[in-house]
Amino acid sequence: MTVQAYADMDAAALSAAAETLSERHRELAKRNTQIDMTRGKPAPEQLDLSNAILTIVGPDDVFGDDGTDYRNYGLGTGTPEAKKFFAEYMEVTPKEIIVGGNSSLNLMYDTLAGAVLYGMPGGSEPWGKVPGGAKVLCPVPGYDRHFAVCETLGIEMITVDLDDDGPDMDRVEDLAANDAAIKGIWCVPKYSNPTGITYSDAVVDRLAGMKTAAADFRILWDNAYAVHHLGGGVATVKNILAACRAAGNEDRALMFGSTSKITHAGSGIAVLAASESNIADASKKMGVATIGPDKINQARHVKFFGDLDGLRAHMDRHAAIIAPKFAAVLDALENHLGGKGLATWSKPQGGYFVSVDVPDGCAKRVVALAAEAGVKMTGAGATFPYGKDPRDRNLRIAPTMPSPDDIAKAMDVICASIELAAVEKLRAG
Amino acid sequence: MTVQAYADMDAAALSAAAETLSERHRELAKRNTQIDMTRGKPAPEQLDLSNAILTIVGPDDVFGDDGTDYRNYGLGTGTPEAKKFFAEYMEVTPKEIIVGGNSSLNLMYDTLAGAVLYGMPGGSEPWGKVPGGAKVLCPVPGYDRHFAVCETLGIEMITVDLDDDGPDMDRVEDLAANDAAIKGIWCVPKYSNPTGITYSDAVVDRLAGMKTAAADFRILWDNAYAVHHLGGGVATVKNILAACRAAGNEDRALMFGSTSKITHAGSGIAVLAASESNIADASKKMGVATIGPDKINQARHVKFFGDLDGLRAHMDRHAAIIAPKFAAVLDALENHLGGKGLATWSKPQGGYFVSVDVPDGCAKRVVALAAEAGVKMTGAGATFPYGKDPRDRNLRIAPTMPSPDDIAKAMDVICASIELAAVEKLRAG
Repeated sequence: MTVQAYADMDAAALSAAAETLSERHRELAKRNTQIDMTRGKPAPEQLDLSNAILTIVGPDDVFGDDGTDYRNYGLGTGTPEAKKFFAEYMEVTPKEIIVGGNSSLNLMYDTLAGAVLYGMPGGSEPWGKVPGGAKVLCPVPGYDRHFAVCETLGIEMITVDLDDDGPDMDRVEDLAANDAAIKGIWCVPKYSNPTGITYSDAVVDRLAGMKTAAADFRILWDNAYAVHHLGGGVATVKNILAACRAAGNEDRALMFGSTSKITHAGSGIAVLAASESNIADASKKMGVATIGPDKINQARHVKFFGDLDGLRAHMDRHAAIIAPKFAAVLDALENHLGGKGLATWSKPQGGYFVSVDVPDGCAKRVVALAAEAGVKMTGAGATFPYGKDPRDRNLRIAPTMPSPDDIAKAMDVICASIELAAVEKLRAG
Repeated sequence: MTVQAYADMDAAALSAAAETLSERHRELAKRNTQIDMTRGKPAPEQLDLSNAILTIVGPDDVFGDDGTDYRNYGLGTGTPEAKKFFAEYMEVTPKEIIVGGNSSLNLMYDTLAGAVLYGMPGGSEPWGKVPGGAKVLCPVPGYDRHFAVCETLGIEMITVDLDDDGPDMDRVEDLAANDAAIKGIWCVPKYSNPTGITYSDAVVDRLAGMKTAAADFRILWDNAYAVHHLGGGVATVKNILAACRAAGNEDRALMFGSTSKITHAGSGIAVLAASESNIADASKKMGVATIGPDKINQARHVKFFGDLDGLRAHMDRHAAIIAPKFAAVLDALENHLGGKGLATWSKPQGGYFVSVDVPDGCAKRVVALAAEAGVKMTGAGATFPYGKDPRDRNLRIAPTMPSPDDIAKAMDVICASIELAAVEKLRAG
């Protein structure tokens, strides 16, 4: 049975197929499955990998190399040891980094809220005062929390297609060059959320070098999955900060990262890397807004990893746990839907998601059908600004949290829901 | 030698006195003292009191009572156990609290930044859109970081005098009732920074019940020193949230607190307590801006304290360390300046500061003289909005961080600087 077969069927045959698929869906619904595939959360076994971090810093470990007491106030942009470590991680110098609290999303929000309220280096006014409103380019599909930040702050989002090597740069260049209200672009350069693609060097160079009408244009470079491979080793992405500097646009890139999916989600360390001018600007804004980050937790991370090789070995252990789960998702998609032409899906080498495109107008229906059969999926549209997928076709699957058994069960439901929704659509014409 | 004597002196005698005091100051400067009395930082021995918290949460302690894994994402407004504990600490219900990250200043900044950008429940527009600009009442002297937040956000600050029982309420009521642009008032209700005063019940009731022209007026209740006594037991302050509710203004109060000066500064827990409507508003704003607080650190605090009695016993140990330091400051002031009529000072029962008023126009000179002799004091004017003390008379002394020996040395310098500056002023007429 292939999609060709579906497409070639007459109305009666399609009706019969739909009935068979409906019956299968009803049977699956009876199993009382309750599985949550919505968010990219680490599994308990992944969290166990970092349990040593909980107690690794005792009373003798709370002092910096220079004797500074990390139990007290001070060092609002991070400890020297953490800056050194995470500068290497981000491929920048310690002067080009702020080691912050537990949430890179919070660093991104504060960056954009600060831009709206006060402006950015190189700009002539706060983004909140831009006539007609500031805008940001959003490659789609993308990360829902990036979009929520913009929507909340009143920053208009303009979508551009995300291709296999990065955003559609012809369109990005055209938009950025001709509209001074366009102040930036969201990028998840490695193992993109949700499609898993990695930016090519050519795309990085075009982003770094392109003409922008806005003098304070910013590339919001969320390198969330910098080291999060699935067993095949870490993909490389050209250093955007270096590329921007080489192109004479050194203030253009703001790089974000975090250990949320390396150690413990929620108890990790977030970083901002950028030009010294941008770091000075962010430091000044932060100096008013907070007493500074949790330096003890920074000490925990530095001691736990030891060095970047330690971190890399740690990520290999993560890969060993989650790679089979991604394989289970991909196997199910292939086994249930392969060759039927009903759906296409990403085959990521890292990151936290598998992205599935179903026939136009079917994504919401798939999510509803899966929910009826006990499988919670990320809401259709979530991967687009304002929650609106114009083609209603993209689904995001998060394989890491459930057990391999649950994944197999959930994928039975998801694939059956896709097939049913697609055939319903075919029947509707 | 009393101030009467100074005041009665003829020019020649004053000149001689000034010469003696200058000579004394020069001698002190030769001692190469290097002491920092600028900020309210806990001393190392205070930080040692909490060293057990560093390793108190191991792999078996990272789960909530309901089994929730606190190593993972989720619970953006705090863990149930932390909410229960800190609700009791703040004298509210668990529904009236958000347990956040490590910085109550950050909660305050985010609250005001959110008000400026999006508005507050009950209001008709974001504070940033108020015609002519939003304003906040600032009892003075007060906390410099409160003022920095307002200045940065473009919120105009209007000073009101801080009396021994709280702000000058006649003036507060008059201002709040007649200017709809006045959106709030900063309050440090217990052991106020820097004067150490505690608000009377009458003041709390007047704040809770007063007529405000702004429908979204907020009392910014920074209960930073809720349990931070100096050995005489904890002063009581009437519950502002309950008082506001009783007065029919339940959304008026936002209460802030933190453990920064209870456990480890910078690695503590901050809380916001308020009406359920305000909590819902703050939760919604936070839900976009961050992945949530460090729940492991919340678990550490809950386990470390055990219960409020545990926390209270812990604060008694703090008091035993810092009370002698406050006594050393007060003794020095009395011994060097008592009866001379040159200065008045607070005699706090808690908190982190001693406030000294010197003759008008002398504060900056005192700070400069002390610096010349190796003692760093908080900048004159820091306790006033925009860093401007209109009478140039208020000094803030932070006794907790230095050793008792250093305090004695520093107070020699400070008192000599006060006396010299005051006599210089007398001579200048």
